[in-house]
Amino acid sequence: MTVQDAHTPASESDSPSESGKPGGAVDQNGTERSIGWHKGYVQGSRPDLQVPVRQVHLTNGKDVTLYDTSGPYTDPSIETDVRRGLAPLRENWIIGRGDTEEYAGRPVRPEDDGLKHTSPRGGLRNLDAVFPGRPRQPRRGRDGQAVTQLAYARRGDITPEMEYVAIRENVAPEVVRDEIAAGRAVLPANVNHPEIEPMIIGKRFLVKVNANIGNSAVTSSIEEEVDKMTWATKWGADTVMDLSTGRNIHTTREWVLRNSPVPIGTVPLYQALEKVDGKAEELTWDIYKDTVIEQAEQGVDYMTVHAGVLLRYVPLTARRKTGIVSRGGSIMAAWCLAHHKESFLYENFEELCDILASYDVTYSLGDGLRPGSIADANDEAQFAELRTLGELNTIAKRHNVQTMIEGPGHVPMHKIKENIDLQQEICEEAPFYTLGPLTTDVAPAYDHITSGIGAAMIAWWGTAMLCYVTPKEHLGLPDRDDVKTGVITYKIAAHAADLAKGHPGAQEWDDALSDARFEFRWEDQFNLALDPDTARAFHDETLPAEPAKTAHFCSMCGPKFCSMKISQDIRRQHGGDLVPEEIEAGMAEKSKEFAAAGNRVYLPLAE
Amino acid sequence: MTVQDAHTPASESDSPSESGKPGGAVDQNGTERSIGWHKGYVQGSRPDLQVPVRQVHLTNGKDVTLYDTSGPYTDPSIETDVRRGLAPLRENWIIGRGDTEEYAGRPVRPEDDGLKHTSPRGGLRNLDAVFPGRPRQPRRGRDGQAVTQLAYARRGDITPEMEYVAIRENVAPEVVRDEIAAGRAVLPANVNHPEIEPMIIGKRFLVKVNANIGNSAVTSSIEEEVDKMTWATKWGADTVMDLSTGRNIHTTREWVLRNSPVPIGTVPLYQALEKVDGKAEELTWDIYKDTVIEQAEQGVDYMTVHAGVLLRYVPLTARRKTGIVSRGGSIMAAWCLAHHKESFLYENFEELCDILASYDVTYSLGDGLRPGSIADANDEAQFAELRTLGELNTIAKRHNVQTMIEGPGHVPMHKIKENIDLQQEICEEAPFYTLGPLTTDVAPAYDHITSGIGAAMIAWWGTAMLCYVTPKEHLGLPDRDDVKTGVITYKIAAHAADLAKGHPGAQEWDDALSDARFEFRWEDQFNLALDPDTARAFHDETLPAEPAKTAHFCSMCGPKFCSMKISQDIRRQHGGDLVPEEIEAGMAEKSKEFAAAGNRVYLPLAE
Repeated sequence: MTVQDAHTPASESDSPSESGKPGGAVDQNGTERSIGWHKGYVQGSRPDLQVPVRQVHLTNGKDVTLYDTSGPYTDPSIETDVRRGLAPLRENWIIGRGDTEEYAGRPVRPEDDGLKHTSPRGGLRNLDAVFPGRPRQPRRGRDGQAVTQLAYARRGDITPEMEYVAIRENVAPEVVRDEIAAGRAVLPANVNHPEIEPMIIGKRFLVKVNANIGNSAVTSSIEEEVDKMTWATKWGADTVMDLSTGRNIHTTREWVLRNSPVPIGTVPLYQALEKVDGKAEELTWDIYKDTVIEQAEQGVDYMTVHAGVLLRYVPLTARRKTGIVSRGGSIMAAWCLAHHKESFLYENFEELCDILASYDVTYSLGDGLRPGSIADANDEAQFAELRTLGELNTIAKRHNVQTMIEGPGHVPMHKIKENIDLQQEICEEAPFYTLGPLTTDVAPAYDHITSGIGAAMIAWWGTAMLCYVTPKEHLGLPDRDDVKTGVITYKIAAHAADLAKGHPGAQEWDDALSDARFEFRWEDQFNLALDPDTARAFHDETLPAEPAKTAHFCSMCGPKFCSMKISQDIRRQHGGDLVPEEIEAGMAEKSKEFAAAGNRVYLPLAE
Repeated sequence: MTVQDAHTPASESDSPSESGKPGGAVDQNGTERSIGWHKGYVQGSRPDLQVPVRQVHLTNGKDVTLYDTSGPYTDPSIETDVRRGLAPLRENWIIGRGDTEEYAGRPVRPEDDGLKHTSPRGGLRNLDAVFPGRPRQPRRGRDGQAVTQLAYARRGDITPEMEYVAIRENVAPEVVRDEIAAGRAVLPANVNHPEIEPMIIGKRFLVKVNANIGNSAVTSSIEEEVDKMTWATKWGADTVMDLSTGRNIHTTREWVLRNSPVPIGTVPLYQALEKVDGKAEELTWDIYKDTVIEQAEQGVDYMTVHAGVLLRYVPLTARRKTGIVSRGGSIMAAWCLAHHKESFLYENFEELCDILASYDVTYSLGDGLRPGSIADANDEAQFAELRTLGELNTIAKRHNVQTMIEGPGHVPMHKIKENIDLQQEICEEAPFYTLGPLTTDVAPAYDHITSGIGAAMIAWWGTAMLCYVTPKEHLGLPDRDDVKTGVITYKIAAHAADLAKGHPGAQEWDDALSDARFEFRWEDQFNLALDPDTARAFHDETLPAEPAKTAHFCSMCGPKFCSMKISQDIRRQHGGDLVPEEIEAGMAEKSKEFAAAGNRVYLPLAE
């Protein structure tokens, strides 16, 4: 794999790129080579297919190539402007397929931004917030045909998107195509979101992490949400869900989409509920459908749809300790009971499939009845809904809609495996997308940890994407620091699972960092770390001096007690410059003498 | 179980007790009852046997009783003074057994505090640091007999210590005695540490957590270490290891022991190395033995002994990515190679057993060859040493010495179970005491999380005690915040394991908190939390107002989107004051109509 470096080392403030410290190492080609990390690209089969990577240049002249989700923001040779949005990377690929058409699209109304119909002026007051970037018309499949990656894969095509993820995942393009065709993986890529760098979600690939953002109770501004999105992807979020529920939902989403290098997911039901002033019983299929089209035209890549919450399942939650804890689930349950009719999402599911197929919006079938406490885990309500999701998954596939299934929730460790095993069986191995699960209820303020434990385990057993949980879960809205903590915690869970699954190449990262640790290459250890900034800061707290960066010990044990130093001395003294084999031989020799001397414990040995 | 409250609610600064907010609830007996949590005691069979508990008084009039490790410091009716030390709770029990005797003991020498022999005045300069509490003479078993809980249990005795932990663990005293007699559990309790509140370590009981403290490279003071110890136990540490390696080791340990309500562990090899100015090859059995007696006389409850690092195993580490990462392991390996003799710890193991037995010091057989990276996990060196630890475990038991076995380290998830299964088989189910394991190497600054994942899993599978890892692991010395973060993370792992093991009563805590969450009893949710202070602080960040403490929603979703609120409304509207059974019946009724109407999806239903 040949990698081209972006011209100069990245160096944005408070980002991982900060840790890219220029240094004086000279690489294989004898050219000056700066230590740290750089944005790099792997060239694909066509000029406009370049896959971004995080290139870490080590002080020992070696390079380590890591998966990169940070988008153009960490490429110093690219000038980004949130008011213009990102370049439409996939536009030519989409147009090139010739199966989509531009059209006028649905007019944006004040109520799309949660503004009362009675006060359209409210819309004007917010005009400054309207996205100023290039005007665009929405696009959809000609004659309502399915323009999904699933349809292409089944047809045997390998799209540029598929080649892109194949390079990212370091596998053959055919593997990507076949996994998508089989419904075991999804490649969320709405034709109206050409800005994304394609990624794939499936158990055969690297475990992915989703970060939720969204202004609720109108506590945060549009700018804050866009910043949270870029901040989350900078630390490794593979997708972002915009769960906004307050004012300016439509406009906030527009800004987020136009600036996002990763797929964006939403829960259309939230906005639909805003349109009926929060009165669940006033929801209708038409309002919901209109909202889905509104969001599909904007470019939302996947949508959570709680179509599995059936009227007859609601009673099953009556004995629960925490009832229904999914927002969407509780809204649909309320609607079903208010009307004593079956869910309009379930009744109109096939029509919904045709709409999503014409934009290539991926289904994320929501688990509206997921358990909200250890006591409710794996109960009848949860698994009844799962069986319905299996039925809907089959219908969605028939309509060529890419589909993943959402999972819990709160589940004690010994009940986690049953969740992934049942889901894989019932949903024909469709990608599982779980929230945690949280392995105990007793640690509010630390639920990134209670859930990170369950997330690592369920991902090892086959979950394809993990929805992060921040320290603020159950207590409040995550701020910037919470978002970072949540993403880092979940990247740890995802990578631990990649290792346990034996994902090809996953361990190279650990090995490179451990080599740096054993050889006291502190700068390399920092630059290879999931969070270089914090690793360096912690080290400097106790040993700030520059020399300490090359010291053969750290403040934990000090020089006398540094096991690695002693361990190295042993190799030097008893191996000199010998290679491991020779050291081994030499030591084995000595221990043979020991064995020959009786190898017994209480027999005094000769000096 | 009748619980007596300490007279007034505890309220020390920056401690969990802070969250004990007085309130106006009136309890069953109609007496004024303050909301929050209080120190309580469960009365045993003798007046001086009172087991501390954390009593949480809920706003709904109910009480929840939790395990309490915080010692007398959280009992407002007890005045503590670190210069006097804690009351010798067990003194009468120990003397009452009549099998120990006081004796002059070993004179304390300047070098015990790491002061050069050449400058005995150095001792004077530190005189102010000498522990000022009541003078005491060391105690040991008469005629060197074994005065261990193991010896008593095998004899069929149920000691006050055993009854104490039986009450703590909510099991019959016979269970405690039998588990100890079988070597499946240890009750670390040096006859020279009468201040401890007895606790037990074994897979049949609650999973325990150890916190390491210790001044290294002389960065912290004696007061800091004592404060770290009380701080760690306040947040739930069940034992504390003093890993000090700098100056004043002896004096620091004296202060820690006299003020510690939990068992204290050490690695005598560290102090022995200080006595030979850090030159491993100058270590001798006599210096080591003298150090063990010095520490046993002070009251150290368990000691890590790296007797399993044999000369012939050292070559097995030559091909490793990170060699030998255990301090003790690397020191012993260096000694073995320098002398080309077998480890003096291994050769003199039986004599060491007799010394420990006469004070009831528990063995923690160290895993000196544990893997320090994912690449080295479960390798030949590691398992070769484990087999030797199994051999030593059998010898220790023959001498009536309580014994636990230490475990790794860095281990990917799919290789964790083999560690506990092998250890249980090879060491006849002796308690396993593991460090993490860390499930990936790539996240320095977050190793409390990379290891918390592995810790929860290995504890579920049978590990009895978890040694915490702080965010500073691999980078620097943990400060107060790191200690708290490490302890909380490991309490989460331990409790998640207790749930997965189905430990009787473990889920009551989760259920109580989830009930409070569902019923919007915010104060109860905070007071039941593992860290009430942080939970309350996070909630108040976005909704500070007092009314918000009773609001039926939080800032996460706001009133309209609060799933629990909607879920409750559903119960109210469709169940009124009916009990769950009736709601269920009523709803089932409705859904039968739905079923009767065809139960088919696309059939329009009558209003």
